[in-house]
Amino acid sequence: MDKIFGRNAVLEALKSDNRTINKIFVSKTAHGTNISEIFKLAKAKGIVVNNVPPEKLDKYENENTQGVVAEISATEYIELDELINLTLEKQKGLLLLLDGIEDPHNLGAIIRTAVCFGADGIIIPKWRSATVNETVERTSAGAIEHIKIAKVTNSSQTILKLKESGFWIIGAENGNDSINNTQIPFPSVLVLGSEGFGIHQKIKEKCDIIITIPQENKISSLNVSCASAVVLYEIYKQKITL
Amino acid sequence: MDKIFGRNAVLEALKSDNRTINKIFVSKTAHGTNISEIFKLAKAKGIVVNNVPPEKLDKYENENTQGVVAEISATEYIELDELINLTLEKQKGLLLLLDGIEDPHNLGAIIRTAVCFGADGIIIPKWRSATVNETVERTSAGAIEHIKIAKVTNSSQTILKLKESGFWIIGAENGNDSINNTQIPFPSVLVLGSEGFGIHQKIKEKCDIIITIPQENKISSLNVSCASAVVLYEIYKQKITL
Repeated sequence: MDKIFGRNAVLEALKSDNRTINKIFVSKTAHGTNISEIFKLAKAKGIVVNNVPPEKLDKYENENTQGVVAEISATEYIELDELINLTLEKQKGLLLLLDGIEDPHNLGAIIRTAVCFGADGIIIPKWRSATVNETVERTSAGAIEHIKIAKVTNSSQTILKLKESGFWIIGAENGNDSINNTQIPFPSVLVLGSEGFGIHQKIKEKCDIIITIPQENKISSLNVSCASAVVLYEIYKQKITL
Repeated sequence: MDKIFGRNAVLEALKSDNRTINKIFVSKTAHGTNISEIFKLAKAKGIVVNNVPPEKLDKYENENTQGVVAEISATEYIELDELINLTLEKQKGLLLLLDGIEDPHNLGAIIRTAVCFGADGIIIPKWRSATVNETVERTSAGAIEHIKIAKVTNSSQTILKLKESGFWIIGAENGNDSINNTQIPFPSVLVLGSEGFGIHQKIKEKCDIIITIPQENKISSLNVSCASAVVLYEIYKQKITL
């Protein structure tokens, strides 16, 4: 776990989109406008701020903490354009777009699955989505270090950009095409919807193929990370037998 | 969520193996030896006891609470013998034996997967395993109502009993046989190991087949619920095409 120290450094990190802050520690004796701004921005982003006795920060005496320490995720995001270019260089490029996965356990499990089955990268929205925090890093069991992740502001515009770049858009959600009978074209982007609501309508409309997982019993549905495992496994099998 | 009322009823439920208590509420004014026994047994079983003001239990005034209310899981377990007999009646019976799944999120997701792909029941050990609690019921998203679960004291002896009853034992863990090239015989029991340690050696030795999931990248491994999804999906495909 990396740490950053000092009021301005933490404020900058809070404003940045490429940095994930897990937790902030603020000394109870620290006051001032930038301290209240730290509280305000952290609250808006849903980041926990711990108000601690000043001696709690004594162990960082070699750093100029100014009463503020933030624990940040080691994960660095990649720009979407760079991820697209890198994937297009692959023979059978495959990206994942997670359209609003909210549970960090699911995000961590999907990251593991993506690495296991050789996906080239993951795209997650900046809003209404689990972000890569401590829980995600832990549940990914180290896999997070082995895959590229891009954060995007608008999933719908991202899909259009991916289409223009030559990607096929594959939605995973009770579609007409059973995954075991569908030949997946490459390069492609597999879109997984949120736990509660599936893929947003605006994104579903842009999918070239909507696949479904055959199952015996429709009274239940797969957890989204389990569904991602089945679909990525099938796509992986196609990749190696093609 | 069902509830039980009264000191003896709650004590009996605490001693029973077929009842899962999610939470116990004890009035702050309740005292006596059976109250301290409730605290002791609950602690040993890892069940939360909330010490509440007596008026908190006023809403149950029609029940004889004696200052004690327990929230219990609606899940009722089935006896192993009955589960075996029911499964043997099926044309292609399939059971799951979870050898020490500890995370309730994983247990819930596996239950959903088992229902989706038509498994006939799940066997979980009484000890060192997640039990069916509120989290499991919630993450199972209702699937728990649609599958039979048996709790067993000794997984190793259970495997022997299953073998004697005619079941094939299939271990899922980095084996020699790739799941997509392995014909699964029926009736069978799929054994999944714990998150940290996999299948116990004593159980592994008793497996007839140990299968593996082919994957591109061995630097990571699948989360156990994701692995169960891939394996159960493949077995399901075999069941419907056989």
